[in-house]
Amino acid sequence: MGLSNETRENLGRVSVATITTALFKRGLRNQFIQDVHPLHAGLPNMVGEAFTLRYIPAREVLNPIGVFKDRAHPQRKAIEECPPGAVMVIDSRKDARAASAGSILVARLMKRGCAGIVTDGGFRDSPDIARLAIPAYHQRPASPTNLTRHQALDINVPIGCGDAPVFPGDVIVGDAEGVVVVPAHLSEEIAAEALEMTAFEDFVTEEVLKGRSILGLYPATDPQSERDFAAWRKANGR
Amino acid sequence: MGLSNETRENLGRVSVATITTALFKRGLRNQFIQDVHPLHAGLPNMVGEAFTLRYIPAREVLNPIGVFKDRAHPQRKAIEECPPGAVMVIDSRKDARAASAGSILVARLMKRGCAGIVTDGGFRDSPDIARLAIPAYHQRPASPTNLTRHQALDINVPIGCGDAPVFPGDVIVGDAEGVVVVPAHLSEEIAAEALEMTAFEDFVTEEVLKGRSILGLYPATDPQSERDFAAWRKANGR
Amino acid sequence: MGLSNETRENLGRVSVATITTALFKRGLRNQFIQDVHPLHAGLPNMVGEAFTLRYIPAREVLNPIGVFKDRAHPQRKAIEECPPGAVMVIDSRKDARAASAGSILVARLMKRGCAGIVTDGGFRDSPDIARLAIPAYHQRPASPTNLTRHQALDINVPIGCGDAPVFPGDVIVGDAEGVVVVPAHLSEEIAAEALEMTAFEDFVTEEVLKGRSILGLYPATDPQSERDFAAWRKANGR
Amino acid sequence: MGLSNETRENLGRVSVATITTALFKRGLRNQFIQDVHPLHAGLPNMVGEAFTLRYIPAREVLNPIGVFKDRAHPQRKAIEECPPGAVMVIDSRKDARAASAGSILVARLMKRGCAGIVTDGGFRDSPDIARLAIPAYHQRPASPTNLTRHQALDINVPIGCGDAPVFPGDVIVGDAEGVVVVPAHLSEEIAAEALEMTAFEDFVTEEVLKGRSILGLYPATDPQSERDFAAWRKANGR
Amino acid sequence: MGLSNETRENLGRVSVATITTALFKRGLRNQFIQDVHPLHAGLPNMVGEAFTLRYIPAREVLNPIGVFKDRAHPQRKAIEECPPGAVMVIDSRKDARAASAGSILVARLMKRGCAGIVTDGGFRDSPDIARLAIPAYHQRPASPTNLTRHQALDINVPIGCGDAPVFPGDVIVGDAEGVVVVPAHLSEEIAAEALEMTAFEDFVTEEVLKGRSILGLYPATDPQSERDFAAWRKANGR
Amino acid sequence: MGLSNETRENLGRVSVATITTALFKRGLRNQFIQDVHPLHAGLPNMVGEAFTLRYIPAREVLNPIGVFKDRAHPQRKAIEECPPGAVMVIDSRKDARAASAGSILVARLMKRGCAGIVTDGGFRDSPDIARLAIPAYHQRPASPTNLTRHQALDINVPIGCGDAPVFPGDVIVGDAEGVVVVPAHLSEEIAAEALEMTAFEDFVTEEVLKGRSILGLYPATDPQSERDFAAWRKANGR
Repeated sequence: MGLSNETRENLGRVSVATITTALFKRGLRNQFIQDVHPLHAGLPNMVGEAFTLRYIPAREVLNPIGVFKDRAHPQRKAIEECPPGAVMVIDSRKDARAASAGSILVARLMKRGCAGIVTDGGFRDSPDIARLAIPAYHQRPASPTNLTRHQALDINVPIGCGDAPVFPGDVIVGDAEGVVVVPAHLSEEIAAEALEMTAFEDFVTEEVLKGRSILGLYPATDPQSERDFAAWRKANGR
Repeated sequence: MGLSNETRENLGRVSVATITTALFKRGLRNQFIQDVHPLHAGLPNMVGEAFTLRYIPAREVLNPIGVFKDRAHPQRKAIEECPPGAVMVIDSRKDARAASAGSILVARLMKRGCAGIVTDGGFRDSPDIARLAIPAYHQRPASPTNLTRHQALDINVPIGCGDAPVFPGDVIVGDAEGVVVVPAHLSEEIAAEALEMTAFEDFVTEEVLKGRSILGLYPATDPQSERDFAAWRKANGR
Repeated sequence: MGLSNETRENLGRVSVATITTALFKRGLRNQFIQDVHPLHAGLPNMVGEAFTLRYIPAREVLNPIGVFKDRAHPQRKAIEECPPGAVMVIDSRKDARAASAGSILVARLMKRGCAGIVTDGGFRDSPDIARLAIPAYHQRPASPTNLTRHQALDINVPIGCGDAPVFPGDVIVGDAEGVVVVPAHLSEEIAAEALEMTAFEDFVTEEVLKGRSILGLYPATDPQSERDFAAWRKANGR
Repeated sequence: MGLSNETRENLGRVSVATITTALFKRGLRNQFIQDVHPLHAGLPNMVGEAFTLRYIPAREVLNPIGVFKDRAHPQRKAIEECPPGAVMVIDSRKDARAASAGSILVARLMKRGCAGIVTDGGFRDSPDIARLAIPAYHQRPASPTNLTRHQALDINVPIGCGDAPVFPGDVIVGDAEGVVVVPAHLSEEIAAEALEMTAFEDFVTEEVLKGRSILGLYPATDPQSERDFAAWRKANGR
Repeated sequence: MGLSNETRENLGRVSVATITTALFKRGLRNQFIQDVHPLHAGLPNMVGEAFTLRYIPAREVLNPIGVFKDRAHPQRKAIEECPPGAVMVIDSRKDARAASAGSILVARLMKRGCAGIVTDGGFRDSPDIARLAIPAYHQRPASPTNLTRHQALDINVPIGCGDAPVFPGDVIVGDAEGVVVVPAHLSEEIAAEALEMTAFEDFVTEEVLKGRSILGLYPATDPQSERDFAAWRKANGR
Repeated sequence: MGLSNETRENLGRVSVATITTALFKRGLRNQFIQDVHPLHAGLPNMVGEAFTLRYIPAREVLNPIGVFKDRAHPQRKAIEECPPGAVMVIDSRKDARAASAGSILVARLMKRGCAGIVTDGGFRDSPDIARLAIPAYHQRPASPTNLTRHQALDINVPIGCGDAPVFPGDVIVGDAEGVVVVPAHLSEEIAAEALEMTAFEDFVTEEVLKGRSILGLYPATDPQSERDFAAWRKANGR
């Protein structure tokens, strides 16, 4: 079955921060990918199922420049196999001393209809990637070719990325702030709950910007806050 | 008594770098808050007396989502109590794996007339905070709710922030580069001295951009440099 | 002899990422300066021979504010002696807790016709430096005066910068992504090879953006790719 | 009421590792003080209620060598006030560049009957402390006087130590491996449960050393394992 | 075929340092497992083929204490399947905040005839492991149960350990200093070469301790050194 | 002139901790070499003038195994030139991923009468070095040959070591806890003062071990403490 269009749309309308709170309520404290940021902060939310790539440290004799002549090289294969709508997530062991991928591969992912790409290492050609219309997240730019430090090994196995666990099929959501991993079986309920929370947060933000105190409002422990929110929802059709 | 309007204005016209030099001359080498940057680099200097908030690592059983229903929760209380004109400074133990605060709380601070907010951790909703007209400084974005890692504990006690000591009432100054902590009793003289230094640096910059060597000019060991500076001050009314 | 105009121009047209691959093919895996970025990402490539400055940790009694009155102070001397066209590279031991230099010195370098400046620490007055028309690369802003942590010691000796070895006369290239160190004796051949590689990468990028698979194209293991590239070169005059 | 003798004795007979598992079962994942070790690994378990001391970064002008002439200086006061049987826990912000305390203060604690001392920084005079008959835990030796980096500020407030939250009155247990923080209200049940777990682990260890597989034994999913354990308990009087 | 008895014996007689030099001569610079040390430094060399276990960050809902009741849990399965004579190598992502394994599992490995165990994280029950007659290497003690941070996932796949690549079947050698990974196909020649190098190093050490200069001796650029070494070999039967 | 026998003897009788306090009183807060420890903690104090060696990151093509055939290679040359009685201090940029030196070189230093060796990286053959009767300090063992990461470059220039500045001729003192750098011109007065402080600390330790409070005793703000100390000195001939 997988990710429904409705869930995908809902996750496109909420923030990563709001999702982390919904996950926190379910005992999940470790689903935020630490220390990655978008190369282009102006794109819509990235939403898609995780398709993973695992790197290990490179052994020099196994990673000469010629390895890419092999069409079955896992890095290149992964780029051609990542399903449209999916997000490629790369386990680079948080090592940004060499690239996880470059602009040509990311452009190919974009053309194939993939939803985005995340590494806990770094991208090369990062200024070019920043101009592509596909969300890409990394730790910091890394010009050296991936062979310098990374050997691509496994496609679509469970991995760690930025200290978060990522299982193939988990739903990955990224916004201008960061990236969160939503376990597949929770994605629908998290999306719905986050949408509700977002309505409330938008209401609260409006009130606060009008000068109202957060006490009793956020959270809405004052019954008046609940009434005001109900009225706001009606007025705003949310 | 506290921070006079004149000192506040003077500190608004000088750079954090210049202030650190004035502090260095007095044996204070550790007043720069390390590794924080502004979310919005285009705002005027942040100047205000420190109002602090101290976090400790969160114990799970003490930090369920429900704690915010308590109006006396130190994080929410601090936001409502931080005096207008003051800068809230948060000791997050340099841990940006969870948020120190989010956009609703920062918006409330702004509406209450506070001068800014600094954490050595990270903010959530950082793209929203970046659009608010209040200076905010952090290490990096952190979407997860603060309860994930932080328990708010103390209001307005001496703290560490970014390896710098911060005492309530210290004068906090932030510019597009960073944040410095000026001990309260020195703020007036530091402000005056930094204003003088800034005049000289502006003069030197103009001269250098005209092609003059820094030798004898910066510092002004050549008597001609002193004369030229005197003339420049007269000409520029500074 | 040194760096020819042709090599300088060629290195101005290629990316740091491409250069690192050409170096990798020659067994050089460690020439990328780790964890520095440009203050102003919109400038043309920085290209020039390395002129180095070495800092050691500051001993307080040797580094009062008065040391700059000495015209022979190595930091100030280096700024006046760095040859036009050269890149000043500073070994700050990756310590950004105090400044490596500030805007006045960088402005002077610019006026003297130097090609750029790199530190593996941080600059102070970074917003001002970002407005100067000279490439400058650092780790993060650092307001405190360099005397707080750094003592300038040696001019134009071999150093480490961002974990890369830098010898005086090495050719330094920086782009919007980062900085690479090209050993002097290889600079001509690396420039030529990188220019060729860039032509091929531009061709591949165009093809990928038209929807072509990377398999057989990148690298060009399919003979058709070679033929298409030859035609593209003819058509584009490259 | 506080820590009973029975609970104290029970906690003296179990390992920190076993206690962390009992806490894990209750949702407490963050009670192990990270990256500290005993200076003398041959002592019995350290068990006692937490008495805390909080340091902030030192401001030079507030921390000349003369401050210790003040009998109310928090560091010296804490040493004289820590109750017999209690464990002093110091929040040094994981900074071991200067000492948290030295051998004279630790000797005084020992003579006053305190149960031990823990810092997430370092001790000076560490070879001398290692010869005292009081458990002491730190990150690494740190010779410089504490005034170099630390200002003692608060006595017996909640703190962080090695990324774990510590509240006054929590029960601190240390063995040859490390230190764990047991919330006061759980100490009795954790002690009892850990004692039971230890009996089972001792039985399993004996069986494994005789050559038995862990499958079905650890955990005891094979009913025979349960029966064997019951027999072992009877035979060993545990 | 695998590791011959002769190669195993030879690798038992040489140091990890000597092996790294033999690997360096073949362009392998990254085979030393960084930042691990033996719990018991007095054992003979650990030599065996790598049998690997891969951990990813734990997702709380997948890692309750009950998971070990499943006999197919990869951690427990790996302990029972690691071949006699093999070395278990665990990829713990250099995270020692929770245990990679404890004394019961290590004791079972020992009883099953395995040659040793290595993790780039930490062991719990480390004082007990230190008393077992099986080499075990880790970064630092880690009392919390592995479920706190680690989920065992894959058995015998290529991994990274301490920044080194480890493929199943690689030959792992550990001594009192550290652990090195020898690619399987090189193990015989590396063992033979390291044995020769060790003879020379033993000769040089004897000479140096008699007062001889290293110039001309180490390396033996003086022909007399070659002659003396030949005589030494004859005299010592090596 | 240099280091007198009396100063050398005095520095042999005091602790590194005591010396750091004497330096602190003179405004020197940064003379402790951070994060190094002795390989053999049972030796007398190491005392000698600094003779330095500077490493930069290795460039592969300049550092094949053959470089040591050059008798002028700075590493080997330094070992033969370090004066008897001096301490060799190596700037390894705090990088312990490859060795700074091994047992043969350290043995040669010992035979040449040098007083000790310190690196802020790591030694190879560390178990052998630990058995030599010469003090050696490092961060952690590092088996890979130095060529893997380090190129020896300069002999006897000012360096950084463990974040401390070291000038040739500075007096280096190491004990079982760590290493401190005493500026040459202060060595005599620091030695004398530290000897006095040590007498007082020994007196205080005795009193504390008899059960006396530190208040009024340490520091001796109670006049009785001064009188008792005077009596103790007379009784103990110190």
